Amino acid sequence: MAGAIDFYFDFSSPYGYLAAEMIEDLGQRCGRAVNWHPMLLGVVFKSTGGQPLTMAPMKGPYSVLDMRRSAAFYGIPFNMPSVFPIATQNPARAVLWMQQNHPAHAKQFTLELFRVFFRSNRDISKLDVVGDVAAGLGYNATDVIAAAQSEDIKNQLKANVETAITRGVFGSPFFIVDNEQFWGADRLPMLERWLTQGAWKY
Amino acid sequence: MAGAIDFYFDFSSPYGYLAAEMIEDLGQRCGRAVNWHPMLLGVVFKSTGGQPLTMAPMKGPYSVLDMRRSAAFYGIPFNMPSVFPIATQNPARAVLWMQQNHPAHAKQFTLELFRVFFRSNRDISKLDVVGDVAAGLGYNATDVIAAAQSEDIKNQLKANVETAITRGVFGSPFFIVDNEQFWGADRLPMLERWLTQGAWKY
Repeated sequence: MAGAIDFYFDFSSPYGYLAAEMIEDLGQRCGRAVNWHPMLLGVVFKSTGGQPLTMAPMKGPYSVLDMRRSAAFYGIPFNMPSVFPIATQNPARAVLWMQQNHPAHAKQFTLELFRVFFRSNRDISKLDVVGDVAAGLGYNATDVIAAAQSEDIKNQLKANVETAITRGVFGSPFFIVDNEQFWGADRLPMLERWLTQGAWKY
Repeated sequence: MAGAIDFYFDFSSPYGYLAAEMIEDLGQRCGRAVNWHPMLLGVVFKSTGGQPLTMAPMKGPYSVLDMRRSAAFYGIPFNMPSVFPIATQNPARAVLWMQQNHPAHAKQFTLELFRVFFRSNRDISKLDVVGDVAAGLGYNATDVIAAAQSEDIKNQLKANVETAITRGVFGSPFFIVDNEQFWGADRLPMLERWLTQGAWKY
């Protein structure tokens, strides 16, 4: 099988959520596995001088409109969370733990976290909400909450974010496949054509 | 006929160039006229704190790749200019003059300016290059250069940029139709569906 698609995302990223809803189908159509990498855009922004989109002058109000309209365009349910942006260490760490301990459920857990935030307006920065989502998949909430606070998982997430930055990841969602970078849910059609029509030169 | 599409662009914007190559066909498919508005992103950025994309950390190198790949995706010839970004007062002013004095040629003149910059690597910030492009369409280069330096045209461009900012324009290309805003050449498919499927709610 050809190389996997690396999918980087931050849980506080609406376009990351939209991509999470679409990337597995794209991978299947293209015969590529998808590796999901939670990361922390706040740490990335310290390297790049970036800022949360919704806080930018003029661009901020437009971006909220674009998020809602993009979701409608793709046919994906979406509600702008009332608390936004949020810190995403806790859900990111819980996903790392799930990936290592129950890999078969990790993507479903990730999607479910995105959905409770961007559909049901629940603040997934809170450990108890992360625990609830894990419980919904049949896991013990207390175990997941404890795991997400372990030093080992914390250090792994830090290392993963550093690796992402080293690979040039500066936003969410971000995709790397066959050393080609794509930034944004709106670049998925381009990524797909690039894979299916054979890495055209440009 | 339904309301026109207002198309705002800066001549130093690669995505503005790509949009300029596509927007008239879109307008025809949707039964909408397109009004072309040259503006100055440098002035806009003073209001928004924005900066030229290619100069942003990490995002800069990616953006050049994305510009070239996007052009290939749309099937539009593109060469990254060796001098970039450029000041765009001169071509913007010349276009205003052309719009007022020879409206039938104004869009062709605008497209030709974009093309000599983004295909032929000629620096359209220079008045003599702007004059050459006008001459290529049968106009007297000296007349166009003089017109582009008139106080009247300078003031009109200033006023137009202020109007654009007032309407929420913060980037290039930017489209407003039926009071709906769209930013980016990559939003043209969404703009088209929004027009053809009737301004969906979101």
